[in-house]
Amino acid sequence: MRTLPQRFVEARTLTVQLAAPLSAEDQTLQSMPDASPTRWHLAHTTWFFATFLLEPYDPGFAWPDPRYRELFNSYYEGVGPQFSRARRGLLSRPGVAEILAWRRAVDEAVVACFGRADPALRALLAPIIELGIQHEQQHQELLLTDIKHALFQNPLQPAYRDDLGDIVPAPTAPSPGDETPSLNLAGGRVTVGAAGGEFHFDNERPEHPHWLHPFRVAAAPVSNGRYREFIEDGGYLRPDLWLSDGWAACREQAWSAPLYWIDGAHAFTLRGVQRLDPQAPVCHLSFFEADAFARWAGARLPTEFEWEHFACLHGHEAAAGTLLDDGALHPLAGEASGLRGLWGGAWEWTASDYAPYPRFRPLPGALGEYNGKFMSGARVLRGGSCVTSHSHLRWTYRNFFAPEKRWQFSGIRLAMDA
Amino acid sequence: MRTLPQRFVEARTLTVQLAAPLSAEDQTLQSMPDASPTRWHLAHTTWFFATFLLEPYDPGFAWPDPRYRELFNSYYEGVGPQFSRARRGLLSRPGVAEILAWRRAVDEAVVACFGRADPALRALLAPIIELGIQHEQQHQELLLTDIKHALFQNPLQPAYRDDLGDIVPAPTAPSPGDETPSLNLAGGRVTVGAAGGEFHFDNERPEHPHWLHPFRVAAAPVSNGRYREFIEDGGYLRPDLWLSDGWAACREQAWSAPLYWIDGAHAFTLRGVQRLDPQAPVCHLSFFEADAFARWAGARLPTEFEWEHFACLHGHEAAAGTLLDDGALHPLAGEASGLRGLWGGAWEWTASDYAPYPRFRPLPGALGEYNGKFMSGARVLRGGSCVTSHSHLRWTYRNFFAPEKRWQFSGIRLAMDA
Amino acid sequence: MRTLPQRFVEARTLTVQLAAPLSAEDQTLQSMPDASPTRWHLAHTTWFFATFLLEPYDPGFAWPDPRYRELFNSYYEGVGPQFSRARRGLLSRPGVAEILAWRRAVDEAVVACFGRADPALRALLAPIIELGIQHEQQHQELLLTDIKHALFQNPLQPAYRDDLGDIVPAPTAPSPGDETPSLNLAGGRVTVGAAGGEFHFDNERPEHPHWLHPFRVAAAPVSNGRYREFIEDGGYLRPDLWLSDGWAACREQAWSAPLYWIDGAHAFTLRGVQRLDPQAPVCHLSFFEADAFARWAGARLPTEFEWEHFACLHGHEAAAGTLLDDGALHPLAGEASGLRGLWGGAWEWTASDYAPYPRFRPLPGALGEYNGKFMSGARVLRGGSCVTSHSHLRWTYRNFFAPEKRWQFSGIRLAMDA
Amino acid sequence: MRTLPQRFVEARTLTVQLAAPLSAEDQTLQSMPDASPTRWHLAHTTWFFATFLLEPYDPGFAWPDPRYRELFNSYYEGVGPQFSRARRGLLSRPGVAEILAWRRAVDEAVVACFGRADPALRALLAPIIELGIQHEQQHQELLLTDIKHALFQNPLQPAYRDDLGDIVPAPTAPSPGDETPSLNLAGGRVTVGAAGGEFHFDNERPEHPHWLHPFRVAAAPVSNGRYREFIEDGGYLRPDLWLSDGWAACREQAWSAPLYWIDGAHAFTLRGVQRLDPQAPVCHLSFFEADAFARWAGARLPTEFEWEHFACLHGHEAAAGTLLDDGALHPLAGEASGLRGLWGGAWEWTASDYAPYPRFRPLPGALGEYNGKFMSGARVLRGGSCVTSHSHLRWTYRNFFAPEKRWQFSGIRLAMDA
Repeated sequence: MRTLPQRFVEARTLTVQLAAPLSAEDQTLQSMPDASPTRWHLAHTTWFFATFLLEPYDPGFAWPDPRYRELFNSYYEGVGPQFSRARRGLLSRPGVAEILAWRRAVDEAVVACFGRADPALRALLAPIIELGIQHEQQHQELLLTDIKHALFQNPLQPAYRDDLGDIVPAPTAPSPGDETPSLNLAGGRVTVGAAGGEFHFDNERPEHPHWLHPFRVAAAPVSNGRYREFIEDGGYLRPDLWLSDGWAACREQAWSAPLYWIDGAHAFTLRGVQRLDPQAPVCHLSFFEADAFARWAGARLPTEFEWEHFACLHGHEAAAGTLLDDGALHPLAGEASGLRGLWGGAWEWTASDYAPYPRFRPLPGALGEYNGKFMSGARVLRGGSCVTSHSHLRWTYRNFFAPEKRWQFSGIRLAMDA
Repeated sequence: MRTLPQRFVEARTLTVQLAAPLSAEDQTLQSMPDASPTRWHLAHTTWFFATFLLEPYDPGFAWPDPRYRELFNSYYEGVGPQFSRARRGLLSRPGVAEILAWRRAVDEAVVACFGRADPALRALLAPIIELGIQHEQQHQELLLTDIKHALFQNPLQPAYRDDLGDIVPAPTAPSPGDETPSLNLAGGRVTVGAAGGEFHFDNERPEHPHWLHPFRVAAAPVSNGRYREFIEDGGYLRPDLWLSDGWAACREQAWSAPLYWIDGAHAFTLRGVQRLDPQAPVCHLSFFEADAFARWAGARLPTEFEWEHFACLHGHEAAAGTLLDDGALHPLAGEASGLRGLWGGAWEWTASDYAPYPRFRPLPGALGEYNGKFMSGARVLRGGSCVTSHSHLRWTYRNFFAPEKRWQFSGIRLAMDA
Repeated sequence: MRTLPQRFVEARTLTVQLAAPLSAEDQTLQSMPDASPTRWHLAHTTWFFATFLLEPYDPGFAWPDPRYRELFNSYYEGVGPQFSRARRGLLSRPGVAEILAWRRAVDEAVVACFGRADPALRALLAPIIELGIQHEQQHQELLLTDIKHALFQNPLQPAYRDDLGDIVPAPTAPSPGDETPSLNLAGGRVTVGAAGGEFHFDNERPEHPHWLHPFRVAAAPVSNGRYREFIEDGGYLRPDLWLSDGWAACREQAWSAPLYWIDGAHAFTLRGVQRLDPQAPVCHLSFFEADAFARWAGARLPTEFEWEHFACLHGHEAAAGTLLDDGALHPLAGEASGLRGLWGGAWEWTASDYAPYPRFRPLPGALGEYNGKFMSGARVLRGGSCVTSHSHLRWTYRNFFAPEKRWQFSGIRLAMDA
Repeated sequence: MRTLPQRFVEARTLTVQLAAPLSAEDQTLQSMPDASPTRWHLAHTTWFFATFLLEPYDPGFAWPDPRYRELFNSYYEGVGPQFSRARRGLLSRPGVAEILAWRRAVDEAVVACFGRADPALRALLAPIIELGIQHEQQHQELLLTDIKHALFQNPLQPAYRDDLGDIVPAPTAPSPGDETPSLNLAGGRVTVGAAGGEFHFDNERPEHPHWLHPFRVAAAPVSNGRYREFIEDGGYLRPDLWLSDGWAACREQAWSAPLYWIDGAHAFTLRGVQRLDPQAPVCHLSFFEADAFARWAGARLPTEFEWEHFACLHGHEAAAGTLLDDGALHPLAGEASGLRGLWGGAWEWTASDYAPYPRFRPLPGALGEYNGKFMSGARVLRGGSCVTSHSHLRWTYRNFFAPEKRWQFSGIRLAMDA
């Protein structure tokens, strides 16, 4: 068991390592308002510790420039104004080298501050450091999905990492229409949400009862091969399969395949253009595509509570898919049978809107903005992806994105009424 | 008890009566994509019976012009293409007189078709006519809210009806901060949704169990006076009270009061500019404003299931607010005490997103698009408004709008954890 | 020779006659910000006399509603604020009947005011009435081009006038590539602009010398048949033929033929859908299309000074094309030979930007905004169209529109270096 | 006199020197579609020689990547498709180091190709190299104005060069309203345009006669101090001073001072925030502001022919303002009296739209797109700026920008009717 400062240093170091393959030019790009430049992720995660820990608790703390407080504030109104999100890509200063130097200074100050703290102060600092580590891990994932989107804008199709070799598809292709087996669950009054103990975000609390009808959940996520059948069956051309807003998005954005598919056989990945593996989980889908696919398949998306209950009962280590720790940077095909891909691989869209649990209480102060104020218009995703750290996941974890977003590693696990 | 044809004729007649105070020029206006011209409502409701009843079941049926099939199709992909929603205000032909003549012809054909039908055919026609009446009633409400929005664009501030006299505020103003009493509910496993019997939309079905925590619900809706306190306390200036998307909408659209408020003492109504009654229910709020108000008041919005359970237990005739049948065309202050305003007055925003009930099945065919495909991005409202017909409402009724919309008569009833 | 009051009454009456075939619904439509509703044209031309003549010079004058002053102000900052141009179609009040009554009252007041004026006052009033007649004539043309655009939005393709019979194409089609003969002009130091005497807008003054190179001008405007050759030769697909801004407009707006062409053989007209006459002048072209056509044809557009010099030397009554007085409401094919279509038919785009003449002085006061402030970004058109009154035209007349506009009757006459 | 290869190498080297103070992050920024990243300027100017000289004339030429041909094509439809202008800032590869290496390779290849060419080939190559040098110089100016705009987006207000010391205002401030003396010109038939001989762009040809009225031109450009009087007199608040499109731009973009003014006393410059010198030429004005100022001052802008005729008669070396060669990177106050600032300092907006001269012929082939296709919607500027090279200017030189653009060093010299 590593100490909190050890885990802090590890998390902080990993972010720098993930940025290392990128040039200063790469780290400056912002390809859309949803995505941020690498240099911004490096700076904002540092801002987080500076703002919430050093400024209030370290008497020796000073900003390199007081304007950093606004420049790297993401969305905390309680902290003060924020530099415009959509314009992060218009900044070149501070440069990458300057940001990295600031990171080192902040990291040392955090470790020193915690090291010299008495137990009472440690009790205040520890939850902030823990939250900061979780925050850092979220930005590690975003750093990778954001740079993937940015590099994809370049007709040269450059890879984030071109030193890892090609992705090798699984040896045998599945038969068309080959149905994934599913597991049966009885439902009734179940308990969902986080009780306490280990770290949880405020949005996972409190633990509470929920009523479930009997249902079934697929043992495996939907594969590229199966999704290609949906496409070939006119899935992107049939409005009857889509929610009204989904159909509008499909038409306006001219969707005809998952994001990053180049043709029916190749896709752009963090490792450059690669052959699609028909057996690997499909990813980079919007909620609307996931929902339309489910309707086409005669199934539906699980609610987040069905997903959580299922995972609690059946989730085990062997059910994992590709995680950041594996270094593949893309969801790989798992074992040919059994429950799989439940964590890692691709985030799984659920049918649930992102809403507060009964008696939800956000964190006090500006950190209360971390989750609660976004509970509008998003859908919950569960289970993690190939760029999520193993240590970041748990069955109660709630990720959330607007239903038309596609740049995350987001896929599908089907559910059915039983 | 009136017969189905009688109720059909009554509903159809009421629409024409509601349009009667409006000139041909008025009936041509479309002030935003969400709203439709009066002439379009008159034609579309007629299109509904032509498309779903006469075309399939009346051998003598013919369209006045075959292009009407597309021109007055609102959103039914299963019927075929639709004339652009945002461009309905660019049409002047067919004119109002022509549309009214078509209405009469269709009404006669529907009555005749039903009249000569054998019992087997009647069993097919009756549910279509019943759905068509409900559909007509929904468009009666929209006709009024749409023309209110259109007339408001005119600096001359013309009234829809200027022959009804002024709205007289209630004699005594409430004390500031005067808290509305609330009722306690125990929660637990409750049953929600429609079991069958009377008419229900598909989105109200099936009846199903739901788990509720103990909660409280206010006996009365939030009043103009109480809402003015929120404004005066900086409610529109404090981001901490708002959801993130709500704050963005508030800034972009420069909200500083409910829609139609002209100053703190007057508002534009269907009866022209009128003095605000501090005791009458506040209305024309977005979900975001309702949510921010609730947070400011130390309360929250009820879920739609809390609302329904509450209404089932406590709703009674005396709890009604202003309805279309009353002819006031604006929510009036009710009795000074007791449970009130539960139906009519203003629709009450709930915290619930508009989602399918467990095992929801849409109607077969194109009518399956009536509700199901809109289950994305909207919030449920309950209870009806001052422009809803009494016969249109029931406790299981689910209305829904996007959270930033304000042109409906939409208000607030607070809930709290018990 | 008619008196000024006679001409005033005739002009005012013609506007009402032009609106007469339109229903109240028709008169309410605004299909784009450039176009205005018929009811607005009726009111604004009345506002013009109320603002510039009655208010300052008629002691008994009163507005029906003081808000009309703002409501029907088109763009005169010197008069005060203006109701938003793009929102004119959102108004239904005052209705058509009310506006017509106001017109009659204003017309009577103007005639009475002039009638009782002493010579000194008459000297002040006469130029305002004259300008108002010219203004009225401009709005008569706009009333027709605006309603044509509005009716075209309707899939029912309703005609402004369906009682005039079909347009009959000229009996013999021209041979492909058949070159129109052209006339030679020596150029040198010529005089252009208006010297005074008859009415002229301020933008036609002062008369001034201009240097012209030797040039040639086509005897006839470009025909539909010739323009179709341009289309068939890929004219809309070859960027080398287009100005850069023109090519961008062509791509963005997906131009592939003149506005209102339905296919290569039919076009929407004020008389409904009609067969295209290959020998009639092509119209409803943007400047960019006219310019691209000229480049394709190995020619160029004339400058406005070449056009004016040419017209001064060669223009005669027989050179006229279709005018409003003819009642055809569409440019018809003229004589098979000789100089033709020089006035009427379609406005002819020139290469000249709309700029002030040397020593240009706008009218004093708010009327100085009539022309001068629009001298930015527009191109000059010369010669009049099929919806211009004969009495409105003269060789020095400068019309102007932004280069991408197509809803006017605008066409091409080619020029060449000699 | 330097040889053509010498001048080529000098021009190419200067571009690299101008980019040298910028980090790789800086060189990646694109702050608006009008502006391009530094790295793109470095690559595009190289592309120019690769496309128009090496590809056709150097048998050994090969692209580093064939996709460069599209990636760095600015707007030449005749060469082929172009990567989207507005998205140049979304590219990080090839990186700056890679682009610089490519520059070196192309430079060597051009020199070698010319060196080994026989006289016939040299006669073909020389005009391309000459045009390429002129093109390079234009992009040197753009590189500086574009990075100025990009750095200005950063709240840290970083300087392009912070090693040049502060700009020292001239010692004595001018008296308010102090009128600049002006020179009288008789006009009549004058000759304008380029006759041949020295290098000229195609848009400067042919030389031709033009008729001028008598006029006066101010001896000095408008100063910051004088422009401040315009502001203080409500210049940005009075619609009567503005063209209609200008007033719309002023309102929409909330102009209240020249671009880069921070307050009435400071401005952002390439040397960071500096005090405004009241006697230095005002710059970073749109045409609309220049035109409004002139109207306020009771004067007007000169036409480009007035400007050229004036410069031909009176221009001399001593009339120069700040040039790129001076290294100041900002227009400085000149001598206190006499004709000054005629070249360099700030480009001077003229009243003339950018139009082809009579009998204008663009260059053959794709190079014909260099100038001609932009002759729509722009106004001509004359005289050069503080970031134009001395060797790049001549009295017939025509620069042009859309009238609302402000990011160039653009200012005002007044003219009057005589």
